[in-house]
Amino acid sequence: MSFIIERLAVVGVGLIGGSFACALRDAGVVKTVVGIGRSRANLEQALSLGIIDEISYSAADGVRDAQLVFISVPVCSIPATVQEIASALSPGCIVTDGGSVKAEIVQECEGLMPPGCFFVGGHPIAGTEHSGAAAAFSTLYRGKRCILTPTNNTDPAALDIVSRLWEATGAIVCSMEPGHHDRILAEISHLPHVVAYALVHAVGTADAEGENVLSYTAGGFRDFTRIASSDPVMWRDIALMNRKALLSSIDGFSASLATLRQRIDNHDSEGLAEFFTIAKQFRDGIL
Amino acid sequence: MSFIIERLAVVGVGLIGGSFACALRDAGVVKTVVGIGRSRANLEQALSLGIIDEISYSAADGVRDAQLVFISVPVCSIPATVQEIASALSPGCIVTDGGSVKAEIVQECEGLMPPGCFFVGGHPIAGTEHSGAAAAFSTLYRGKRCILTPTNNTDPAALDIVSRLWEATGAIVCSMEPGHHDRILAEISHLPHVVAYALVHAVGTADAEGENVLSYTAGGFRDFTRIASSDPVMWRDIALMNRKALLSSIDGFSASLATLRQRIDNHDSEGLAEFFTIAKQFRDGIL
Repeated sequence: MSFIIERLAVVGVGLIGGSFACALRDAGVVKTVVGIGRSRANLEQALSLGIIDEISYSAADGVRDAQLVFISVPVCSIPATVQEIASALSPGCIVTDGGSVKAEIVQECEGLMPPGCFFVGGHPIAGTEHSGAAAAFSTLYRGKRCILTPTNNTDPAALDIVSRLWEATGAIVCSMEPGHHDRILAEISHLPHVVAYALVHAVGTADAEGENVLSYTAGGFRDFTRIASSDPVMWRDIALMNRKALLSSIDGFSASLATLRQRIDNHDSEGLAEFFTIAKQFRDGIL
Repeated sequence: MSFIIERLAVVGVGLIGGSFACALRDAGVVKTVVGIGRSRANLEQALSLGIIDEISYSAADGVRDAQLVFISVPVCSIPATVQEIASALSPGCIVTDGGSVKAEIVQECEGLMPPGCFFVGGHPIAGTEHSGAAAAFSTLYRGKRCILTPTNNTDPAALDIVSRLWEATGAIVCSMEPGHHDRILAEISHLPHVVAYALVHAVGTADAEGENVLSYTAGGFRDFTRIASSDPVMWRDIALMNRKALLSSIDGFSASLATLRQRIDNHDSEGLAEFFTIAKQFRDGIL
């Protein structure tokens, strides 16, 4: 690494933001980390764990003099956060984020950047079911993909720095157009969450002569539906912000399910075996 | 245990049948186990592992002199197996099974029993992703539910013996009407498998400008879709045999998904958070 971020500001010091700071500190590429947030308990814990060096309860105050600002707050709050800090950014400052949806965020945030400051959209595909600064750890991103979503407006030097920072965390960095990112994530992440929520909802409200069907579930059901235990507010925001791509993914899934339903209804033994075999091959291919 | 099964015949010595034999032998309630099947390699492995004492490649020959026959072959083959062995059963013999679907099997098999022999339907809710005799182990059923599905035709003494045998394996035994079993299993097991297969099929065939979307999947997707790696032929048979209940479960799920889709489409923030919260509560309730 031929450069050092003297001052990194992290807005939202949870699993994602905290792990980003830890990983960069471990890699020796940041000097001082200021943690910005609203929860005193969480920020004080981050401070005592050595994840951050300073605390700020004001985003605008916290980003002053930072060369890089990493925003890891819920997706719907990212543009508002950028609006709040824009006038306080130092000349040359790079702002990047870790949100799971990109097209809308990138478009809004690029428009909010003051002249001489640069926005680069990003999304590390990593996480655990835990949250908060206490859940952060420096190896979260090691070997995981991080997708950057530059546009025609993106400053090449800023993109290069963000890319090298993610590489310093151990992530495998790739770039794609924001809308393409959103369509891929709709398929591999947002759709499965929606399907898991709908499945648990359906089974939980199923009428089996007044009996609680869920009491018979075993390990398979629990594994399959683990993601339906995720934070409802976070997923509401993601579903709304990636609405268009997600609706299209839901429709694709519904069409697959309708095909399967029809083959069951038609007693189409051969067609069913074929469908299950193709799906199994796709699944085994990602092992 | 105040009784001993002198001779137990197991048709299909795989994970389910092999573990049943192991568990009963460990509990000291069976003397001799004859393993029946078509795969010489599997039966010889079962013999060398001490799961069975004798091998028979003919079901009719193998069940002679047995007091209990346990049938653990794919669900569509269970009635045919019972038909094959019926005339060879000793007077007083009890035949029971481990199939994942019950109404059709119980009705057919009851009708095939010769006078003085008894059929009891059963289904242990246990398993692993492995199969074959080598995958069998004596504690598979410990603490797991086993559902027995007696009807008005079921012999009470035979039901009592089958129930006590399952208790000897460590299972928690309960009884219910075969159709009720099938509706519950459609919800908690057959529907999730169908949904997982449909999801992987949809994502695997999704068009993302020619890119393989599956290459971006991370741990969450892999966990969620693990059950889509199950045996396609086994699941084809289950889907066909429990067709009626499964179609109804698919329709209930589709209705839940349609509600969710509409709330996303309508930008119904409150309705979405409510839906996700209810689902999360159901999910957290089964932890």
